Amino acid sequence: TFSQLCGFDYGTKSVQICKAPWFIKDKPRFEFRGLLLDTSRHYYPIDIIKQIIESMSYVKLNVLHWHIIDEQSFPLEVPAYPKLWKGAYTKWERYTVEDASEIFSSCFMFCGDVTVKLCENERLHSIYATDILGHSLTYSVYLDQLIIICGINVMAEIDVPGHAESWGTGYPDLWPSSSCREPLDVSKNFTFEVLSGILQDMRDIFPFELFHLGGDEVNTDCWKYTPHVKQWLQEMNMTTKDAYQYFVIKAQEIAISKNWTPVNWEETFNTFAEKLNPKTVVHNWLGPGVCPKAVAQGFKCIYSNQGVWYLDHLDVTWDGFYDAEPLEGITDYVEQKLVIGGEVCMWSETADPSNVQQTIWPRAAAAAERLWTSKEAAPTSNTSETALTRLQYFRCLLTRRGVQASPVTNRYARNPPYGPGSCYDQ
Amino acid sequence: TFSQLCGFDYGTKSVQICKAPWFIKDKPRFEFRGLLLDTSRHYYPIDIIKQIIESMSYVKLNVLHWHIIDEQSFPLEVPAYPKLWKGAYTKWERYTVEDASEIFSSCFMFCGDVTVKLCENERLHSIYATDILGHSLTYSVYLDQLIIICGINVMAEIDVPGHAESWGTGYPDLWPSSSCREPLDVSKNFTFEVLSGILQDMRDIFPFELFHLGGDEVNTDCWKYTPHVKQWLQEMNMTTKDAYQYFVIKAQEIAISKNWTPVNWEETFNTFAEKLNPKTVVHNWLGPGVCPKAVAQGFKCIYSNQGVWYLDHLDVTWDGFYDAEPLEGITDYVEQKLVIGGEVCMWSETADPSNVQQTIWPRAAAAAERLWTSKEAAPTSNTSETALTRLQYFRCLLTRRGVQASPVTNRYARNPPYGPGSCYDQ
Repeated sequence: TFSQLCGFDYGTKSVQICKAPWFIKDKPRFEFRGLLLDTSRHYYPIDIIKQIIESMSYVKLNVLHWHIIDEQSFPLEVPAYPKLWKGAYTKWERYTVEDASEIFSSCFMFCGDVTVKLCENERLHSIYATDILGHSLTYSVYLDQLIIICGINVMAEIDVPGHAESWGTGYPDLWPSSSCREPLDVSKNFTFEVLSGILQDMRDIFPFELFHLGGDEVNTDCWKYTPHVKQWLQEMNMTTKDAYQYFVIKAQEIAISKNWTPVNWEETFNTFAEKLNPKTVVHNWLGPGVCPKAVAQGFKCIYSNQGVWYLDHLDVTWDGFYDAEPLEGITDYVEQKLVIGGEVCMWSETADPSNVQQTIWPRAAAAAERLWTSKEAAPTSNTSETALTRLQYFRCLLTRRGVQASPVTNRYARNPPYGPGSCYDQ
Repeated sequence: TFSQLCGFDYGTKSVQICKAPWFIKDKPRFEFRGLLLDTSRHYYPIDIIKQIIESMSYVKLNVLHWHIIDEQSFPLEVPAYPKLWKGAYTKWERYTVEDASEIFSSCFMFCGDVTVKLCENERLHSIYATDILGHSLTYSVYLDQLIIICGINVMAEIDVPGHAESWGTGYPDLWPSSSCREPLDVSKNFTFEVLSGILQDMRDIFPFELFHLGGDEVNTDCWKYTPHVKQWLQEMNMTTKDAYQYFVIKAQEIAISKNWTPVNWEETFNTFAEKLNPKTVVHNWLGPGVCPKAVAQGFKCIYSNQGVWYLDHLDVTWDGFYDAEPLEGITDYVEQKLVIGGEVCMWSETADPSNVQQTIWPRAAAAAERLWTSKEAAPTSNTSETALTRLQYFRCLLTRRGVQASPVTNRYARNPPYGPGSCYDQ
């Protein structure tokens, strides 16, 4: 917020703050403002991830949803089960425990050097800090807001049981059979032992209260054709749908036992809402409508409607991101409070280190404003006069900070500029 | 060279150098190994330019050819003529003198902390250094080679008289008329006073011996239709072609008087070779053939054949860059030595901070190997077994260092990956 007031004056060659002193009154509309990064379809070196984390801080996104593993690769070191990262593409496309800790740590690098001094009012504090541009600043905030604005949490994801084929490269017993490689083998205790080992090792790295257990796009067909799984289903008197539910609920129990609040993709809610742990945070992705249903049943919800907030949908322009409304269809105030926020999702089937930042920026900034700013202050009417001008300016600020953000108004995301021109005239 | 031997071992979690100790015998084939960056068609903030400079050091490119100004914008501060940068797109898209100095300084940041110790043999030295990855190293080199490998020179360019419309935004007298805005007004002393002022101010910033004076694509038609220029031509008894030559030669004289060696695009050589100062370095761009002619007449030459070494030609694949041969058509050894090197050119009509690094890398690395490595060690046969494997590995190394390099074998440069996969399997 503060750095938005600073501008370089080319006449005096100094950084100036116009109309100072300022009284800044600013707080986020939603507590959870996330960006998903998928490191399984393509691997991102930690230098790239740190660049992304730094750029998130510029728009006050505060959760990196790290979709670490998927069916294509298992890049993370898990000390309890050291063969798991044999599922990485190569031995170089891996995150050591130290790398993961470094990613976590870098999420707090961009707070500046913040010193908090208690003032007469017990909740009002003076903050002495250095902002991201290195300018000294002093301002007063309520401490609970400081905690909200400072630092980025990492919400790790282990997407089970569907998106997990790569687990079996190191431990083939996790596959129901060589021809049925996912979902993970629901019939073996070993599957849940491995899951528990992963969650235990990750607990040591990621202190955030939320952990994402996936649960989406589970096609259980091949469980039926795998003799020992079929036999187990019969013994348990379960359909494959029952077994999918059994897997998800058991994974939730393990996560909760390790003091995590579980997050699941919306299919789990759509399929067996009544069985989900009441603490479950339902993560919308398929389309509009699930958050209203989830909060009506008392669940918390994260909004990521793919039609507007999936960054890999290159045809969604900045205003599509900006116009999205996480509270759409929810009128009751108590239910609205259960929507903890939203998240833009950078799936990596066709993104890699060469183009990921151009795909994220500047569209993620439009969603970030929706998540931060009150609805009244960020209307969806007349946006080409209000939000667009701001976003174009911000895109140029991103490039000034070394972030490879795309032109704002290109028809498809990450397209090059059409011809010579100013950054401010896109 | 040294850092190529270092590898991270995921078993021991340490950086290892296999088969040490090594005796490294390595020197460049050409002394001039350049990359042109055009900051007029789009502006690059200095953070982006510094990223590019750092990445140049990874492939031992050693000249940043900074094409600062062109007809679209004049982003540079010139203290002698302070209105010139009114030709910038906006007041934010400008380089102060301090910015230009910072760009120059950053060209030497990537040498590491190099200490030279004289040994018994007066030309053999021990070098104690920290390489770009921060590893300590000690090795012996000949001092003249150290100078060659350490640091990047900046060759600035003021492209006159054709590509200079933006000069007149601040000083309209530089335009022949409001409807004839380039070439610059050849008839006024003021034009050469401004040119001299620019060159004097730039002399304080850039110590490199070469300065690029442009001279390409000069269409003198509108000089003929501008009354006072037409009258001047008659008084001087000059054709417009004579006046073009007059301008270029006068610009050369000013540059030489400030202790610079002038570089000119090949049109100057093609049009009036016999009038060029013998010190002139002829810069090829149109196609093959000019370097053989230039060196036969005793001129030095830089090779940038647009068919193979223009990075904005997105349809030239990595092997087009790799197979290029700066000495093509030159058999005489003395003439070969006059080809001081080559340069890949990143023109910015459709490149900006969002896509420039993807357009440069990895193809520039293929040209860099051609410029560094002896012809015998970098044959153009069987390259998919030799060079391609190395380049794919190097592209992943670039991404590991935070550089946004594109997949190597995409059909058009800077295209995204086709689907999920390893960086090493492009």
